[in-house]
Amino acid sequence: MDRKIVILTEGHSNPHTAKTGCCVIRYRGDEVLAVIDSTQEGKPVSSCLGVGEDLLFISSLSQAPQANTLLIGIAPPGGKVPESWRPIILEAIEKGMNVVSGLHDFISDDTEFADAASQQEVELIDVRKNNMTEIARRPGFREDCFRIHTVGHDCSVGKMVTSVEITNGLKDRGVDAQFLPTGQTGIMIEGIGYPMDRVIADFISGATEKLVLEQQHHDVLVIEGQGSIVHPSYSAVTLGILHGSFPHALVLCYEVLRDTITGLEHMNIPPLTKIRELNEMMGGVFQPCPVIAVSMNGRRVSAEEAEEEKRRVEGELGLPVCDVFRDGREKLVDVVDQFRLDWLKKKQDG
Amino acid sequence: MDRKIVILTEGHSNPHTAKTGCCVIRYRGDEVLAVIDSTQEGKPVSSCLGVGEDLLFISSLSQAPQANTLLIGIAPPGGKVPESWRPIILEAIEKGMNVVSGLHDFISDDTEFADAASQQEVELIDVRKNNMTEIARRPGFREDCFRIHTVGHDCSVGKMVTSVEITNGLKDRGVDAQFLPTGQTGIMIEGIGYPMDRVIADFISGATEKLVLEQQHHDVLVIEGQGSIVHPSYSAVTLGILHGSFPHALVLCYEVLRDTITGLEHMNIPPLTKIRELNEMMGGVFQPCPVIAVSMNGRRVSAEEAEEEKRRVEGELGLPVCDVFRDGREKLVDVVDQFRLDWLKKKQDG
Repeated sequence: MDRKIVILTEGHSNPHTAKTGCCVIRYRGDEVLAVIDSTQEGKPVSSCLGVGEDLLFISSLSQAPQANTLLIGIAPPGGKVPESWRPIILEAIEKGMNVVSGLHDFISDDTEFADAASQQEVELIDVRKNNMTEIARRPGFREDCFRIHTVGHDCSVGKMVTSVEITNGLKDRGVDAQFLPTGQTGIMIEGIGYPMDRVIADFISGATEKLVLEQQHHDVLVIEGQGSIVHPSYSAVTLGILHGSFPHALVLCYEVLRDTITGLEHMNIPPLTKIRELNEMMGGVFQPCPVIAVSMNGRRVSAEEAEEEKRRVEGELGLPVCDVFRDGREKLVDVVDQFRLDWLKKKQDG
Repeated sequence: MDRKIVILTEGHSNPHTAKTGCCVIRYRGDEVLAVIDSTQEGKPVSSCLGVGEDLLFISSLSQAPQANTLLIGIAPPGGKVPESWRPIILEAIEKGMNVVSGLHDFISDDTEFADAASQQEVELIDVRKNNMTEIARRPGFREDCFRIHTVGHDCSVGKMVTSVEITNGLKDRGVDAQFLPTGQTGIMIEGIGYPMDRVIADFISGATEKLVLEQQHHDVLVIEGQGSIVHPSYSAVTLGILHGSFPHALVLCYEVLRDTITGLEHMNIPPLTKIRELNEMMGGVFQPCPVIAVSMNGRRVSAEEAEEEKRRVEGELGLPVCDVFRDGREKLVDVVDQFRLDWLKKKQDG
């Protein structure tokens, strides 16, 4: 059954809080019918979310009668379902729609939702629910499969978007590349992946390794990073994915003017040079793991400021810097593809 | 009710696999009546485990009729209950004993065990079971509370023992110190702590921070480390505890002749200088976090070899090295106490 999705962002229709909704619209827009936010009814979705030119905000599910899936479009820290959304979720279930959620708080564990879903024979899909108990063993990585990993200086700076863009750019060139999602939004888009922040701590690297082993028939794996190696709340998830995916190279993602740590605004983010150094050292314990490019998110600055920032960072780090939204992805894809070809050649030359 | 413990190590009575049993005997020996291993019946426990001079191996629970608690004394990777132990656990429940387990595989989730326990009204205590959903926020750490953290070059090299010995040594000097367990064995010994490797990945640092905040009325917190920052399977847990506890100083624990990574014997452990550098860099992102001493586990070498190794490492790292079993703990406690006093003085001098 094809998904016909209504995205729920009620009262939270901004690109940051509704990151999940935005990314589903960006990469699976053909499956999306509308976005529910009664406070924005009738407006184009793009006016609030920056994506979804052809979509409108609606105030009620009755305005999208063909929809068969309600997708919860936000991922707040802590992951609770806002109380005011309960009637909308229940209405969707009553209408026979499946409900997809990436929250930590599982909708399928909620008795009221679960009972209603069972009566209506619809599915409650908790993307973060998992039962991973694999331990990373570093066995049998395919020698010729190139693994590239996106890391960041903070949460929500564009690691997933960068990963998808690199993958799609490589595919456009005929390279057999696969995006490996490690978070709820990527999983909703790609249909594979594991929610690494929801895995039991002992098994994060194991879950990442399992994902790599399952997909390494592809020639390139682009592994989505999470959080940041210096984020005091989430660095464990970041490192688990870095060590579990054992990448050959990194792309460093950052947002211009993002100075303080998400959720811990009393703390400053260390400079990019430090973020690069720590990622290269921690990723490079057992094989070289250089940062080969920077993916810059310039949404908070003007085109002119972005250009200036780009030159500054290129000078400071000695690396190519690319803003995939403003410049397109080709500069980034060039760097990754060339590095991979050199890497392959070096291997063949032995 | 006082615990009168029989420890189960059936078929696995060696110090490595039965680490949990050994540590409970070492630090809660007054509560232990006997150790069950029918393959060693009648022998002194110390002949196999190196601790428990006054204890004997027994082959059946009937040989320790006063016991009220069966404690599972091993912690295998993967954490499954060996099939051959099921009858012993069931017999304990039938006799009205509580059962304490640190395995990943929860005994309280096992229908046969749970039904029997419910009939007999005994408790099945899964030390790793938890429901942590705290996110680390770095709020309100008490300024004058000194936090010291044990890190290691691998799993099972003596981080817990080192933490307990430092704590007890400080207490002997009248310092208000508290050991903070982060793993199942420490929790069984100390009665507080959280099983960080079993916490959902997003909440490891939050669980560690919660433990610190709950105990920071003490003047010194000695936080047990887990795994190793370079261990490809478990480094996420290691870093989550390092960032969640935000320590002022580290003690680096290692075992002489341990060259390969536990569970990944095809991989070599990087040199101590590298382990030290990575821990200091990752622990020191937001405040200095020096390694101030080395705790050496010399169980595999002679006294003479241990002395030579100690001199070599002292020279190489420029740090005091102490083998708490051979030398006693005072050298280590001296270093920690002096560093803490200097740290306090520096703070007071402002």
